[in-house]
Amino acid sequence: MINQLTAAIKKKDAPVVAGLDPLLSYIPDHILEQAFAEYGETLEGAGLAIWHFNRGIIDAVCDLIPAVKPQIAMYEQFGIPGLQAFQKTCAYAKEKGLIVIGDIKRGDIGSTSGAYASAHLGHVQVGSQSFAPFTEDFVTVNPYLGSDGVRPFIEVCKEEKKGIFVLVKTSNPSSGEFQDQLIWDAEHKEREKDHLYEIVARKVALWGQDHMGDEYSYVGAVVGATYPEMGRTLRKLMPKNYILVPGYGAQGGKGEDLKPFFNEDGLGAIVNSSRGIICAWQKEPYKGSFGPENYADASRQAVLDMIEDLKQAYVR
Amino acid sequence: MINQLTAAIKKKDAPVVAGLDPLLSYIPDHILEQAFAEYGETLEGAGLAIWHFNRGIIDAVCDLIPAVKPQIAMYEQFGIPGLQAFQKTCAYAKEKGLIVIGDIKRGDIGSTSGAYASAHLGHVQVGSQSFAPFTEDFVTVNPYLGSDGVRPFIEVCKEEKKGIFVLVKTSNPSSGEFQDQLIWDAEHKEREKDHLYEIVARKVALWGQDHMGDEYSYVGAVVGATYPEMGRTLRKLMPKNYILVPGYGAQGGKGEDLKPFFNEDGLGAIVNSSRGIICAWQKEPYKGSFGPENYADASRQAVLDMIEDLKQAYVR
Repeated sequence: MINQLTAAIKKKDAPVVAGLDPLLSYIPDHILEQAFAEYGETLEGAGLAIWHFNRGIIDAVCDLIPAVKPQIAMYEQFGIPGLQAFQKTCAYAKEKGLIVIGDIKRGDIGSTSGAYASAHLGHVQVGSQSFAPFTEDFVTVNPYLGSDGVRPFIEVCKEEKKGIFVLVKTSNPSSGEFQDQLIWDAEHKEREKDHLYEIVARKVALWGQDHMGDEYSYVGAVVGATYPEMGRTLRKLMPKNYILVPGYGAQGGKGEDLKPFFNEDGLGAIVNSSRGIICAWQKEPYKGSFGPENYADASRQAVLDMIEDLKQAYVR
Repeated sequence: MINQLTAAIKKKDAPVVAGLDPLLSYIPDHILEQAFAEYGETLEGAGLAIWHFNRGIIDAVCDLIPAVKPQIAMYEQFGIPGLQAFQKTCAYAKEKGLIVIGDIKRGDIGSTSGAYASAHLGHVQVGSQSFAPFTEDFVTVNPYLGSDGVRPFIEVCKEEKKGIFVLVKTSNPSSGEFQDQLIWDAEHKEREKDHLYEIVARKVALWGQDHMGDEYSYVGAVVGATYPEMGRTLRKLMPKNYILVPGYGAQGGKGEDLKPFFNEDGLGAIVNSSRGIICAWQKEPYKGSFGPENYADASRQAVLDMIEDLKQAYVR
């Protein structure tokens, strides 16, 4: 799957992932009204609206980009019907040739991490039957619990030829509270050797060696666009690991700021935009040209502009 | 809810939470057969079996203990039907007077953490209607993303009078990889000042001040029974925060080892056992006395024995 991701990025010349993180306030009235006409103002109605909204965006951008990244929290908040919309969105995106990165940020220990991995990337056994409950190609994983929490994901990834992105340095303002702590190296009696995010990155590089594709590992990292200097350091610490870069657009990152995240081969990074793509119809500079009926066209235009902007970030 | 938790612990004299983390291999054949007869060997069949299994245990232990802790990964692995079993389990436990701690270990940033909080502890708005998708009283939260990731949970907790337990030092063998890193204090130019888990604990104490019950905060911490020395340190750093203690029993912790986790008032800790309770019928010393038909009675006996064992850990 990491080879497919690389191939798709090259073919479409677009290291772009569209974040499908829908709020009901992003969805045009005509879609909401149709869904509520069918199910009322219920969780089912919300789920149907989200699924229809996503389908429109997927149809409009699937030829331009390699991947989508649905954020499961935005579905989980609508309970079971929300999670059914998540499943439908994943399945439809795959049908349209897109790679699906489930932004689930799960992480636990041992068999519990194994259960999350089976749920989202693998299969679960019921008697003599086997089922794939959710069907992402990659998921994001929280590293706080250490190798015990991450390795069960990698084991499932090996079986399924799928991958993970481990949170290393997140894009939010307070990510530094713990991630930027300076680590005292007790063994070498050195101070200020590494920040925590560098310690995590070294582990990602190590874990990644266990499950390599042709050029890159199936184990990637999440590093926020909002921290390009740290991106430069982390790029070097994890040369064989893809970096999933959130924080472009709405959170402040720009194309030219993203150079540090790419390798010299022009690969190794995939940049996410969520609100910048899915809310384009509500925002400048697209608002004037696209009405709610054309929300998906606005998303397409936003993707085209993002692809162009990102060309400042890499040479291939 | 934290006052209710304290009251229930006092009333039942049992700082015990039963971890409802079912695998199909823990479930007696007669329950599996009945579920598969209805739905076949499907995810629905698995969900039904889990729900019936849990119901039996809840019935058998609800008068003895204050709370249960379903681990959502074990339900999520069975997809939508698994998550429906999770919902039914939570609802039934509450009906039986138990407090429900959802072991979800979620954590993201800003509005995304807010969405998880709404999903599990709060309400979500659909048009003019409001829904509570999942209905836990407490959830576990991963702190790696910092205050941005945790505060949205606390905001929802304030509205709903609910609480969280933040992962501080987890019970697994590799929890030290990141959590035990020694932090260099750049401001005071001191070395070996704190481990990361202590930095996180200080934040938990700080976050907790924002949402206090009568004696304890609605913001608690997770610290593994397997690290009693660290428990001692962390107990002092978080005097007003409940500690949820996993790792008792199957993971190796014993009653007498748990003294450091309790305050002098005999409160402030609640100890989880999962396999030790729900698999009691399959294990010594209960195996000989209880058959599969009496699995829930074995769980009750295991709870009674655990309550007795824990009396070595606190004086009230």
